[in-house]
Amino acid sequence: MDYGFFDGEFISLDEPKVQLEDRGYQFGDGIYEVTRIYNGKPFALTRHLERCRRSLRELRIPITYMDEELTAIHNDLIKKSGIRNGAIYFQITRGCAPRSHAFPDQTVPLLSMTIRESAPDADQQENGIHCILAEDIRWLRCDIKSLNLLGNVLAKQAAHDKGVQGTIQYRKDQNLITEGSSSNFFIVKDDIIWTHPTNEYILKGVTRSILMDELIPKLGYTVVEKAFTPEFALTADEAFATSTSLEVTPVVDIDGHTIGTGAPGSISCALLKAYHELVAKECK
Amino acid sequence: MDYGFFDGEFISLDEPKVQLEDRGYQFGDGIYEVTRIYNGKPFALTRHLERCRRSLRELRIPITYMDEELTAIHNDLIKKSGIRNGAIYFQITRGCAPRSHAFPDQTVPLLSMTIRESAPDADQQENGIHCILAEDIRWLRCDIKSLNLLGNVLAKQAAHDKGVQGTIQYRKDQNLITEGSSSNFFIVKDDIIWTHPTNEYILKGVTRSILMDELIPKLGYTVVEKAFTPEFALTADEAFATSTSLEVTPVVDIDGHTIGTGAPGSISCALLKAYHELVAKECK
Repeated sequence: MDYGFFDGEFISLDEPKVQLEDRGYQFGDGIYEVTRIYNGKPFALTRHLERCRRSLRELRIPITYMDEELTAIHNDLIKKSGIRNGAIYFQITRGCAPRSHAFPDQTVPLLSMTIRESAPDADQQENGIHCILAEDIRWLRCDIKSLNLLGNVLAKQAAHDKGVQGTIQYRKDQNLITEGSSSNFFIVKDDIIWTHPTNEYILKGVTRSILMDELIPKLGYTVVEKAFTPEFALTADEAFATSTSLEVTPVVDIDGHTIGTGAPGSISCALLKAYHELVAKECK
Repeated sequence: MDYGFFDGEFISLDEPKVQLEDRGYQFGDGIYEVTRIYNGKPFALTRHLERCRRSLRELRIPITYMDEELTAIHNDLIKKSGIRNGAIYFQITRGCAPRSHAFPDQTVPLLSMTIRESAPDADQQENGIHCILAEDIRWLRCDIKSLNLLGNVLAKQAAHDKGVQGTIQYRKDQNLITEGSSSNFFIVKDDIIWTHPTNEYILKGVTRSILMDELIPKLGYTVVEKAFTPEFALTADEAFATSTSLEVTPVVDIDGHTIGTGAPGSISCALLKAYHELVAKECK
């Protein structure tokens, strides 16, 4: 059963717990993480907690939850819900205060969490997804996993309106691709893997980090962290998107242009296979 | 007494009413307005409601509150709270749905409102405020009065950290001033008033509109809607910021550079006086 957690207690998901003047509700003043649960175990939790702390520090939200505590709540949510495969969402806001832009004094951050059953889309992983290109109109601190997600929402909706599965965003002033609407984006050309470097234009995805730190070196591929134009991407041999939800999902069509042969590429498939093996090992 | 309103009922401000999966809480997926109350009456409410409808349309949030209804709740909040001078904040989110970026189906928007006692800062209006310059890092749809306010929050906090009252933002790639962290910004040079044109880089402020449509023509001043550089602003004869909270507040120092004589300029003062007269007439 889906479950929630708010400020120290386990609740049902529709229980009203949040006050109107929670800064998360009025300013989007908070950060979040999504952790995938495989076989009743959270995957890559250490990396998520590390990024959570970084996001909090960048927004100067005090750290009031220890990793041990967040881990324990993850495990409690899994146990209480009985969910074996799903996702845990958690967010921490700056807390409640009379509305005023600057940081309030003496406000305690508020943690909320939800667990829901879900699974990666095996069909999309096997056959690839179609994407559109759209201008990246988000703010210039996309490295913070904040609750200000309207740019991502509109990008995802634009794909939905066109009947495709994803959006690849590019900065118009630079004519360079940044990332997906909730994923990192990679291309392969002449056996070299390309992806945008980690800076304020993209989120350093946990799945991206697992590929960069572990799977790509393990499989012996070469990767460059270098931004590329939309035009260059359309001539790629392969393309794929990564995220906690997508894992490694091939992109086979961008704006009606077939990528490579139109089927998932061999490097994309090898990385997905290696990812599944890592998950199986870690969450057995 | 401060008061709140949520989804049809009047509540105390600390009553928890919002669910974790309200899209306002998880995505900042909603819009807001702040209306000032003078002498027990909302000022310029028609303009605020018009902008509210525009913001909703731009985000494709269905309009489920009629102007008559929003006006009635404003008046009820004023009556119940007994507040004669203050501000009413209201926001409308897309509603509650299991978390997923794209717009959910069959979700009903949720209205929340708060009323609090407050007054414009007479000392700041009389003596002017000091501001810093900071890079505008917000998204490229600043024309929508959305709940994604972290860019504004960080800009306001940066001013607070420096011990000054405001931040004037500029786009780094264009080297052009856009607006304040929650205000529109004007300069006066050689008796011409300058302000950024209304496009995706600024919010079309209600106070800005009152100046442009009513007060500037009435007083016979000349205004150009044209973006200017930070360097040009520092050589201005006068500067001022406008917002529902600030009304017309002179800016006398930017980044340690004195503007004009260092005292509020004559055009700024005349516009503030005309604004106060309009308020007195409308809310007598």
